[in-house]
Amino acid sequence: MKMENQDWTSEKLAALDANDPLGIFRDRFLIPEGTIYMNGNSLGPLSTDARNRLHTVIDREWGQELIKGWNTAGWYDITRRVGDKLAKIVGADEGEIVLCDSTSVNLFKAVAAALHIQNSKDPKRTKIISEAGNFPTDLYILDGVKNFVRGDVQVNICDRSEIFNAINDETAVVVLTHVHYVTGEIFPMEELTEHAHKNGALIVWDLSHSVGAVETDLNLAQADFAVGCGYKHLNGGPGAPAFIYAAKRHHKEMMQPLSGWFSHKAPFGFTDEFEPTDGVSRMLCGTTPILSASALETAVDLFLEAEPQNLKEKRQTLSAIFCDLMMPLCSKHGLTFISPTKPSERGAHVSYQFDQGYELMQAMIDRGVFGDFRAPDFIRIGFSPLFQSYCDMQKAVDIIANILENRIYEQPKYQVKNAVT
Amino acid sequence: MKMENQDWTSEKLAALDANDPLGIFRDRFLIPEGTIYMNGNSLGPLSTDARNRLHTVIDREWGQELIKGWNTAGWYDITRRVGDKLAKIVGADEGEIVLCDSTSVNLFKAVAAALHIQNSKDPKRTKIISEAGNFPTDLYILDGVKNFVRGDVQVNICDRSEIFNAINDETAVVVLTHVHYVTGEIFPMEELTEHAHKNGALIVWDLSHSVGAVETDLNLAQADFAVGCGYKHLNGGPGAPAFIYAAKRHHKEMMQPLSGWFSHKAPFGFTDEFEPTDGVSRMLCGTTPILSASALETAVDLFLEAEPQNLKEKRQTLSAIFCDLMMPLCSKHGLTFISPTKPSERGAHVSYQFDQGYELMQAMIDRGVFGDFRAPDFIRIGFSPLFQSYCDMQKAVDIIANILENRIYEQPKYQVKNAVT
Repeated sequence: MKMENQDWTSEKLAALDANDPLGIFRDRFLIPEGTIYMNGNSLGPLSTDARNRLHTVIDREWGQELIKGWNTAGWYDITRRVGDKLAKIVGADEGEIVLCDSTSVNLFKAVAAALHIQNSKDPKRTKIISEAGNFPTDLYILDGVKNFVRGDVQVNICDRSEIFNAINDETAVVVLTHVHYVTGEIFPMEELTEHAHKNGALIVWDLSHSVGAVETDLNLAQADFAVGCGYKHLNGGPGAPAFIYAAKRHHKEMMQPLSGWFSHKAPFGFTDEFEPTDGVSRMLCGTTPILSASALETAVDLFLEAEPQNLKEKRQTLSAIFCDLMMPLCSKHGLTFISPTKPSERGAHVSYQFDQGYELMQAMIDRGVFGDFRAPDFIRIGFSPLFQSYCDMQKAVDIIANILENRIYEQPKYQVKNAVT
Repeated sequence: MKMENQDWTSEKLAALDANDPLGIFRDRFLIPEGTIYMNGNSLGPLSTDARNRLHTVIDREWGQELIKGWNTAGWYDITRRVGDKLAKIVGADEGEIVLCDSTSVNLFKAVAAALHIQNSKDPKRTKIISEAGNFPTDLYILDGVKNFVRGDVQVNICDRSEIFNAINDETAVVVLTHVHYVTGEIFPMEELTEHAHKNGALIVWDLSHSVGAVETDLNLAQADFAVGCGYKHLNGGPGAPAFIYAAKRHHKEMMQPLSGWFSHKAPFGFTDEFEPTDGVSRMLCGTTPILSASALETAVDLFLEAEPQNLKEKRQTLSAIFCDLMMPLCSKHGLTFISPTKPSERGAHVSYQFDQGYELMQAMIDRGVFGDFRAPDFIRIGFSPLFQSYCDMQKAVDIIANILENRIYEQPKYQVKNAVT
C-alpha cells in the first residue's frame, strides 16, 4: 500500500500544504476547532457559502418572497439547474440529470425505467444482476422491484468476481455501485458498461460514493442510468436530495412508475390526464425540498471551483499518506486494511477491519478524528481534498496510535453501542 | 354564503381581533410588512420558531455535530417523532404516521400497499376509484400504479357525484382527496370510508389540503391509509417533506415497493437480505432531508400550541367574513364563487372563477394580497387562523375592490403569464 515508499516526515507534509493549490478552500468550511473530519464519505461538512445561502433562502426567499419564491428565487428550476451543474462533475450533458428525491427512490425509478425499456423490446430478458455486499438499500430496492413491478423479474446477486460472467442474454439490467461503500474499490465503469451492452443489457450505476470523490464520466462509459447522493462528498447537508441521470438516447422511450406532477408536461396545467414531459425531467415526481436542495446547489458551486486534476492528485496523496502512516499500527495492533492498495484503484475512502472497530471509532471521534463504523467490524476513513490538509493525516494517525497503544477503546464508555450511524 | 347576514363593520372586526384567543400567534410569523398572506394553502409562511430552529440545525447540528448529529441531534428519529406529532393533528395513534418523501411518492407507496393487501385476499378486485378533477398528481400517480405495479389494475376516474355508487365488489382501493384543492369542498370521510369498507374496498385519503386546515380524525373514520403535505397549512417551508399514515391493523401484512434501507428492520445492520421493519416505518424508503424536516417539526410544534376549537371557529369566521364582503364585488364584476356556501362544508380556502383570474391575482399580489391562481381561471384564497386577523379580511377585499373597480388587472404587465405557481 506504500506509494513509492515515501517517508512522510512532518517537514514533507508541511511543504505539501504550503504548496497545495486547494489549500485556499479549507477556510471556506466551518469545521469545529480540533476536529479532523475524515467522514465526508458519509456526511460532508458545512461551508460558509452553504450557510450564507441557507440564510438567504430562509430569511429572504421563504420569509419575504413567500409563494413568489417559486418564480423569483428560482425554486421551480432548481431540480434541472443543479442537475446541469452535477452533469459537469460526472461527465453528463446538460439535460441528462435532475436533482430529486432520495438515492433509494431514484434507484427504484431508474431500474423500473430500464426494465420497461427492456420489456418492450425483449420480454424474455428477466434478470437483474447486482453485487452481493452492495450498499444495502440498492439490494432492498431491487427486492421491491422484484416483488412489485410488473413482468417477470428475477434478481441475481453475485459476488464481485462473478459479475462479469453473470451478464448474459437473459440479463435485463445490471445495477452496480461504482465505488464500494466499505472497501472503496472502483468498478471499471467503461468496461462493465460495454460488456453489459454487448450482451444486450442496460446498466444503472449508483454513484453515491463516487460523485465528488473520484473521476466519473458517464457519457464516455455510455452509461444508461445513474443515481447518486448529495450529502456525502458533495457536502449538501444532512439528507440532501439525490440525483438521477438518464442518457439522452433513452429519453424518448423511458417511462417510470412515480409519475408525479413534476414529471408532467405542464405541472401547473392541472389536467387529469398524465402526459409525460420530455427529457430527464420525466424522472421527477413530487416537490423537491428547497432548503436542502439550496444547500446542495451552493456546495456543488463551491466544488466546481476546484480543478479536477488537483482534486484527484490530492485525494490520492492524502490517502497514500494516511495508509502509509497507518501501516505499522496495523501490524502491531491487528487492524486489517481491506481496501485496494493502489490509490488509483480506490475511491475517496478506505476501511480497516478491527474486532473492536466500533469502540475504536467512538474513541477516535471523542478525540476529534471523525471517521465512521460499518457493521460488522469496519472503520471507514474518508479523504476530502477540499478541507483536509496533508498534516491532518499525521495528526489523525498520531491520535489513533495513542488510542491503540493505550487501549483507550477498551474503556467502558466505548462498549455501549448506542450510535446508529 | 352569508353567515347570519352579518354586517361586518370595521368596529366589529376590530372587536373580534381584540378578543381573538389566537391573536398571540400572529407575531410569531415573519410576514413582510404590508402583506396580507392568504396563500397558506399553497406555501405556509416562516415563523420565528422555524427560523431559529433552522439556524440551530445549520450552525450547531450540521456545522458542529457533523455526522454525530444523526444520534445527538435526533435526526435519526425525526421521521417517527414528527409522525407522532402529526398524529395528534389528524386523529391517528402514535406509531401510525411517519414523515418522509413527497406526497406523490407517499401516495404511490400507500396505493401499492393497499393493492398488495387486496391482491392477497381477493385478486378479482382490480379497480382503483378516484375523482375527476382530483389534485392532478394523485391521478398521475395512479397512472404510474396502473402501468407499473404487478397485477391487473384498472383506474376508474369518476365525477364527484358518482364516487359513492362507483364503489362496489370489484373495487380494490378508493383514492380521494379530503379537501378539494380548488373548491375546498370536504368529502365526508367517515361516510365514504364506511361505504368503501362495506364493499370490501380499502381507502387512501390525501390530506394535503386538510392537515392543519380542517378537523380530521383518521381513526374515528377507520381510514386505511393517508398521505399529506408539509408545506401548506402546516407551514413547514418550501418543499417540506410529506407524511404517510397506515392504520395499525394493516401494519403486519403491509408491504410497499419502495423498500429502501430506512424501511429495514436494521438499517445500519448492512445485511444483503431485505427484512421489513415493524410498524409504519415500513413505509419509509431513503434518507429524509433533515433541514426541511426540522423546519416542519418546529412548525408542527407551534401549530400544536393552539386550541383546535379556536382554530376551527376562527377559520370559519375568517372565511365567512371574506366571502360576505366579496359578494357585492362578485355580482358587480363577474366573479363566480365556486366553493360550498356553508363554511362548515369547505376547507381553509375558497375559489372564485374569473375570466381574467390570472391577471387579477398578479395585480393582487403586487398590492400585497397573496392568494394564488389555478388553471384554467380560478383564484384561490386561503384562511389561516394563526397569522391572519379579522381586519385583514376587510383590507384584502378593499384592495381587490380597487383593482376590480379600476380594472387594474387589464394593465399590460399583468397579461404576461410567466409565473409557474
